[in-house]
Amino acid sequence: MNFQSGRHFLQIPGPTNVPDRVLRALSKPTIDHRGPEFADLSLEVLAGLQHILQTSGPVVVYPSSGTGAWEAALVNTLSPGDKVLMFETGHFATLWYHIALAFGLEVDFVPTNWRHGVKPEIVEKKLAEDKNHRIKSVMVVHNETSTGVTSRIPLIREAIDRAGHPTLLMVDTISSLASIDYRHEEWGVDVTVGCSQKGLMLPPGLGLNAISQRALEAAKSARLPKSYWDWQAMLAANKIGFFPYTPATNLLFGLREAIRMLEEEGLSNVFARHDRHAEATRQAVRAWGLEILCENPAEYSSSLTAVMMPAGFEADALLKLILEKFDMCLGIGLGKVKGNIFRIGHLGHFNDLMLAGTLAGLEMGLSLAGIPFSKGGVAAALEYLEGTFKSG
Amino acid sequence: MNFQSGRHFLQIPGPTNVPDRVLRALSKPTIDHRGPEFADLSLEVLAGLQHILQTSGPVVVYPSSGTGAWEAALVNTLSPGDKVLMFETGHFATLWYHIALAFGLEVDFVPTNWRHGVKPEIVEKKLAEDKNHRIKSVMVVHNETSTGVTSRIPLIREAIDRAGHPTLLMVDTISSLASIDYRHEEWGVDVTVGCSQKGLMLPPGLGLNAISQRALEAAKSARLPKSYWDWQAMLAANKIGFFPYTPATNLLFGLREAIRMLEEEGLSNVFARHDRHAEATRQAVRAWGLEILCENPAEYSSSLTAVMMPAGFEADALLKLILEKFDMCLGIGLGKVKGNIFRIGHLGHFNDLMLAGTLAGLEMGLSLAGIPFSKGGVAAALEYLEGTFKSG
Amino acid sequence: MNFQSGRHFLQIPGPTNVPDRVLRALSKPTIDHRGPEFADLSLEVLAGLQHILQTSGPVVVYPSSGTGAWEAALVNTLSPGDKVLMFETGHFATLWYHIALAFGLEVDFVPTNWRHGVKPEIVEKKLAEDKNHRIKSVMVVHNETSTGVTSRIPLIREAIDRAGHPTLLMVDTISSLASIDYRHEEWGVDVTVGCSQKGLMLPPGLGLNAISQRALEAAKSARLPKSYWDWQAMLAANKIGFFPYTPATNLLFGLREAIRMLEEEGLSNVFARHDRHAEATRQAVRAWGLEILCENPAEYSSSLTAVMMPAGFEADALLKLILEKFDMCLGIGLGKVKGNIFRIGHLGHFNDLMLAGTLAGLEMGLSLAGIPFSKGGVAAALEYLEGTFKSG
Amino acid sequence: MNFQSGRHFLQIPGPTNVPDRVLRALSKPTIDHRGPEFADLSLEVLAGLQHILQTSGPVVVYPSSGTGAWEAALVNTLSPGDKVLMFETGHFATLWYHIALAFGLEVDFVPTNWRHGVKPEIVEKKLAEDKNHRIKSVMVVHNETSTGVTSRIPLIREAIDRAGHPTLLMVDTISSLASIDYRHEEWGVDVTVGCSQKGLMLPPGLGLNAISQRALEAAKSARLPKSYWDWQAMLAANKIGFFPYTPATNLLFGLREAIRMLEEEGLSNVFARHDRHAEATRQAVRAWGLEILCENPAEYSSSLTAVMMPAGFEADALLKLILEKFDMCLGIGLGKVKGNIFRIGHLGHFNDLMLAGTLAGLEMGLSLAGIPFSKGGVAAALEYLEGTFKSG
Repeated sequence: MNFQSGRHFLQIPGPTNVPDRVLRALSKPTIDHRGPEFADLSLEVLAGLQHILQTSGPVVVYPSSGTGAWEAALVNTLSPGDKVLMFETGHFATLWYHIALAFGLEVDFVPTNWRHGVKPEIVEKKLAEDKNHRIKSVMVVHNETSTGVTSRIPLIREAIDRAGHPTLLMVDTISSLASIDYRHEEWGVDVTVGCSQKGLMLPPGLGLNAISQRALEAAKSARLPKSYWDWQAMLAANKIGFFPYTPATNLLFGLREAIRMLEEEGLSNVFARHDRHAEATRQAVRAWGLEILCENPAEYSSSLTAVMMPAGFEADALLKLILEKFDMCLGIGLGKVKGNIFRIGHLGHFNDLMLAGTLAGLEMGLSLAGIPFSKGGVAAALEYLEGTFKSG
Repeated sequence: MNFQSGRHFLQIPGPTNVPDRVLRALSKPTIDHRGPEFADLSLEVLAGLQHILQTSGPVVVYPSSGTGAWEAALVNTLSPGDKVLMFETGHFATLWYHIALAFGLEVDFVPTNWRHGVKPEIVEKKLAEDKNHRIKSVMVVHNETSTGVTSRIPLIREAIDRAGHPTLLMVDTISSLASIDYRHEEWGVDVTVGCSQKGLMLPPGLGLNAISQRALEAAKSARLPKSYWDWQAMLAANKIGFFPYTPATNLLFGLREAIRMLEEEGLSNVFARHDRHAEATRQAVRAWGLEILCENPAEYSSSLTAVMMPAGFEADALLKLILEKFDMCLGIGLGKVKGNIFRIGHLGHFNDLMLAGTLAGLEMGLSLAGIPFSKGGVAAALEYLEGTFKSG
Repeated sequence: MNFQSGRHFLQIPGPTNVPDRVLRALSKPTIDHRGPEFADLSLEVLAGLQHILQTSGPVVVYPSSGTGAWEAALVNTLSPGDKVLMFETGHFATLWYHIALAFGLEVDFVPTNWRHGVKPEIVEKKLAEDKNHRIKSVMVVHNETSTGVTSRIPLIREAIDRAGHPTLLMVDTISSLASIDYRHEEWGVDVTVGCSQKGLMLPPGLGLNAISQRALEAAKSARLPKSYWDWQAMLAANKIGFFPYTPATNLLFGLREAIRMLEEEGLSNVFARHDRHAEATRQAVRAWGLEILCENPAEYSSSLTAVMMPAGFEADALLKLILEKFDMCLGIGLGKVKGNIFRIGHLGHFNDLMLAGTLAGLEMGLSLAGIPFSKGGVAAALEYLEGTFKSG
Repeated sequence: MNFQSGRHFLQIPGPTNVPDRVLRALSKPTIDHRGPEFADLSLEVLAGLQHILQTSGPVVVYPSSGTGAWEAALVNTLSPGDKVLMFETGHFATLWYHIALAFGLEVDFVPTNWRHGVKPEIVEKKLAEDKNHRIKSVMVVHNETSTGVTSRIPLIREAIDRAGHPTLLMVDTISSLASIDYRHEEWGVDVTVGCSQKGLMLPPGLGLNAISQRALEAAKSARLPKSYWDWQAMLAANKIGFFPYTPATNLLFGLREAIRMLEEEGLSNVFARHDRHAEATRQAVRAWGLEILCENPAEYSSSLTAVMMPAGFEADALLKLILEKFDMCLGIGLGKVKGNIFRIGHLGHFNDLMLAGTLAGLEMGLSLAGIPFSKGGVAAALEYLEGTFKSG
């Protein structure tokens, strides 16, 4: 590739643009993970994650990807042959399904067209039919990174409650955590799965679980084999700020800085910022005359927007052109929408002018690639952004 | 100020956005400035600067601002009471004039309206009239950072030659070096003045002089007092990679990296990139219905564009609004155009999407500030940028 | 703790002192893990690891601690109820034993006094007795981080061969990799387990497996459940430089830099350096009149030296004093030697003067803590180090 | 040079080992030097410098080396032909003398043997003889970086007072500032000259002057030409946190961090630390049977120790050997002691174990170079350091 001047635009829906404050924190010299300075670090980080996850219960952090945190949620709570209820809301929900299969679970995997979230009425119906309470867990992706569609967790919680079913509720917040309002405790979630490289504004390398009291109870009788992911050893060591094995110290340095930034901005401001950039992006997409993959406005994602290509045009070639000409990465379509959509990440360390640059790159790219569309998306987004200052 | 998410847009005409590669190089541990590793560093840097300045003669680097490099040019070549010819092309040319006065020089300071560059015909006339060759130096700012107007050095060189006058020619390239084509040797410049924080993509802290053989000759009889700025001691030590006093080692680490980046991109590509972004910016300004300060298209700056405010509107309030709402710095008007203009820096480590973000911030800011203007500047700039790929 | 001036001495046997070159590499902006730049990165890193592990076969890298790499070795090659042969050579061997138990393996766990390595004759005897080849794997820690005792892998390999037994051989090189000569392929190891934060000079956060052809064969029929650790998905994606889930990109940036440093130094020089510093350390310990935990000179570790406290004196109080007074961390005794030993890490990014500082801190600490010992350890170490230049 | 593992030991008497906290601060993105964030930075830095210099008067900071700060002191306070009193206490005092000559001053340059400081009785005598008060300034180097000899400023102040002479007193604290107790105001100093790369623990690139009310008065009538170094423009802009020309922003980021570190440690602790390491170093030198250049114990430097080579042995070859074998830089002899001495820097970001490493490298180096000396210097230093904890 030719030399590219200026800043790279990393507008995939994660990893996100890591703030330079966090990058500098990552480069602090590694310290003894059994010493007092480390204990201070991890206690601060764990308390900060509780605040971000909106829970008073424990949060555990693994040296792992988010996929590892998925595995941790399963092996700590379930036993071979257990039945679980999952929903094919997109590529990552499907990956989760395959993890469950790999561990010998029986999965009721409800199909979707990848354009809407989990329907609460289906959850309620499935649980109501499960008279013997064979379903041990309902597993939902809060924000499908592959589609830009959210599932409304409070409604799902209500559906479970209406069914009067004792199932656990596990939620993937990989691409919603610290970007879209999410309340582990208030919404009655039992295990929340998250990771570092999206709204937390870190490089990849940390996975996390927030754990309810009911999940801790379930863990006592869960018989899937585990060691690395075992909550018990982790929780025991975490109490005094340590880990049962060597933690990813420098990523924790970065996490501390990222949490401080989120607190400085204020969580509600963080969420409002993401909502605003998402709406501006959708204004641009509509002005271009393109279709948003997500069908239901109530389920729009504030982290990313997936856009459908006009029939007969291929997304990956467009993204390649944009990368080469404008040094910007966008998200390709994954799994069964490969080639048919592209995804715009507007989460993490981001602001109005970065969004303007992002949409400008797309608008020029669409034109250069010969895609049929209307110009004016950037202008529409700017109009919306500007308007929020006037009304605000 | 509120917490600002995302990357700051530093779009003043210098200091410019420092590439993270350069920032990392700056953070290397300081080394012994009398050791072999240091000699390698400085010899590489000095050779790289020769290439960038397009000269086979010596270049000296001071721990100083660009202002210091100005002073160095004067004190090394002139004697008390010497007459020099200068042009009031803007704020920085005026500062240079005051330096000359401070050192007891007699200055013929030719006024301008700050909207055009040095007129070669005036140079020729002034020199032709100076039968006794009292004028020891003609001093020109290549690119006025306060106005976005360039002076055409080759034409000035020709004017001097036509006048058959032995004067030295000294040129300030503070905001043109490594951004706009500049040829110290081919254009017969005697002393070039430059600094680190503009096209060289470094933080401030280094000043430089490129020196012709004639300037070295002149230095032998120059009687202005000097020590810190003295070329002789510097050139003697530089020969083997050392300095007569402690150099700014870490800035030199950064300079080495910046030079490598410029070489990777290729100087002609660097210049073409700046030309292209400057033209896109002017397209935006015109679409907004605003006036560019520079009157003569042949003198447009590729580093920055100065824009006139509509009568009755104040620039500084606009820039304050843009800083607060969009976390972008633009250049205020300096000296006698204070409040009447603003300046858009589009030099250094920069690309299309950063420019799009920059212009978007301006367009929204103009609207929010209630400035009379037409929207469409961003769209015009994108149209132009996109068009260059089609024609290219 | 009071403010501590100067550089911290991190002389635990890992994490080790991370070179500033590596810390800077860690702080590069995160990139798209599905893009071409990332593929270049991972292909370079994987090839580099092959060289360091001295194998032509595949190496896989996980976002995990070394413990995770242990788990990966087990779940990829074994089935529930499989019998394995392990040796209680220290704390980390014991942890590995517990991982095996957690996964339902039947472990023949041979006890030791923690002062010597695995005895090849016992391996041979155990395997010879196992007529039905129920033992599926022999698992050995190359360098016990808790004791400073190595096991001689080539002799163990020979013992297996003499027994004519088809068992796999798995080796933990957590604290020997890139510090002590280790040859995955030549020594016929089937799975090597390693991690980032010791000889590889990185922060913690990466675990790795080197895999033999026989281990790949065994993986086909292994029935322990797995997903995150699954070699198959990893190897398939790695072929073109990608990963089945988001990799720890910034740690890979660091790993690339660390590998380049190891190549610049040359692996044989790296090993010789560690051997030399270990011998100097032992000279100091002997001069102090203290006892080295490792009984057999043929099994001395070149990564760390574990030293026994005189009877009646407690190690942890000594280390606390040294941390407070001299800002140096040393390794405490773990598991059943807690309080009875301390461990000096002399691995990773290290040199003669850092060793001198380390031993000086210990010598002053021993004295201030009132431990009965003879001064002169530092002098003995310097004598040895100096002598190697004379003889060399 | 071969690859060198481990941390470089930069034990010249400046630049000193820059703390990684400061290096990270240096790598923050450059900001607008005319914006509110910059004003906060410079006001904090200038107030911090006042505290470190122990003055309530102004301190100015230049983008320059310390040499530049010397020049600033002269050109702001003196006029052509003014007489000044200087002392040839070493190489840097001699350089200062040459600067004074370059600016046309008449210098009474009192010779010394480079082994003691300025004698107060000579100051008194010279001033008493100067009935017409032609001497406009007495100029003293507080800590001669080339010799490790201090001059006692309070005694010199008293001598001036006894003589009843209105002369200014200017003091070079280049290698004593933030290392050796120094009180600009209490000691009645008029201009203090300092720089960044010694006790302030920064890379080179900043020079500074602390200025008394009397010096400000003198500046009003001083006629040496000046522009870059002019205090007036600097003081006017500094009042609101700005600079008359572009300041070295990133070095100021580093300076802020360094000042915070000095405040965290506490200035009196900083001085006590330097005193203690200097004494330990002298214990080592004496144990080696070598001679300290400084003759008068009351004038020992706490920043560095200059050591005389035994007759017939050359220092530079020794230092070259130490650099190659132990990756440590020590200071060579400068000027008329070149080859006859070496200098050990023990200032800045430093601690006991770094000193132990430093002395160990020297002890091994002396031996390998075949210099006649007694071993035991390291042991003597450790004995002393350890003893301070027992008595303390």
